[in-house]
Amino acid sequence: MFVIVSYDISEDKRRTKIHDILKSFGQWMQYSLFECDLTKTEYAKLRSRLNKIINPETDSIRFYFLCGCCQNKVERIGGEAVRDDTVFFAE
Amino acid sequence: MFVIVSYDISEDKRRTKIHDILKSFGQWMQYSLFECDLTKTEYAKLRSRLNKIINPETDSIRFYFLCGCCQNKVERIGGEAVRDDTVFFAE
Repeated sequence: MFVIVSYDISEDKRRTKIHDILKSFGQWMQYSLFECDLTKTEYAKLRSRLNKIINPETDSIRFYFLCGCCQNKVERIGGEAVRDDTVFFAE
Repeated sequence: MFVIVSYDISEDKRRTKIHDILKSFGQWMQYSLFECDLTKTEYAKLRSRLNKIINPETDSIRFYFLCGCCQNKVERIGGEAVRDDTVFFAE
């Protein structure tokens, strides 16, 4: 399943940790947004790891699931973020 | 149509301008992410206004369109951003 993960993390250290986790699950597209193509198991694993780190009072992470049809409609204006195509799934 | 607008804007002044435009088209959900429910005309208007402001070399705006089915699958962990439900469509 294709999922957009967008996050607001109030503290730099936590934000970096979240970024590093997401790097092993998907593609960094914007400052606080990743695009991930995950199995259900991988998504459950990602979500539980993120859940352990965030401060629910001050941080928020949103998950937008896009079906095949919606994936084909993505548009953008302005530069494409540098695509780091090397994705290693965490052990 | 329901569209997620997510943006990376390198300069504060431009980012504020973009934020202010988006406020009149949708709901601010995260630091640089809005959820908008727009007609095709409103979307075209929004896109052209944003296009005039951004610096395509350094800024990027992404538009994710969510069908009804995808809209119902949105998930989140952590606090809900303060919802400012007053949306005034720009004249």
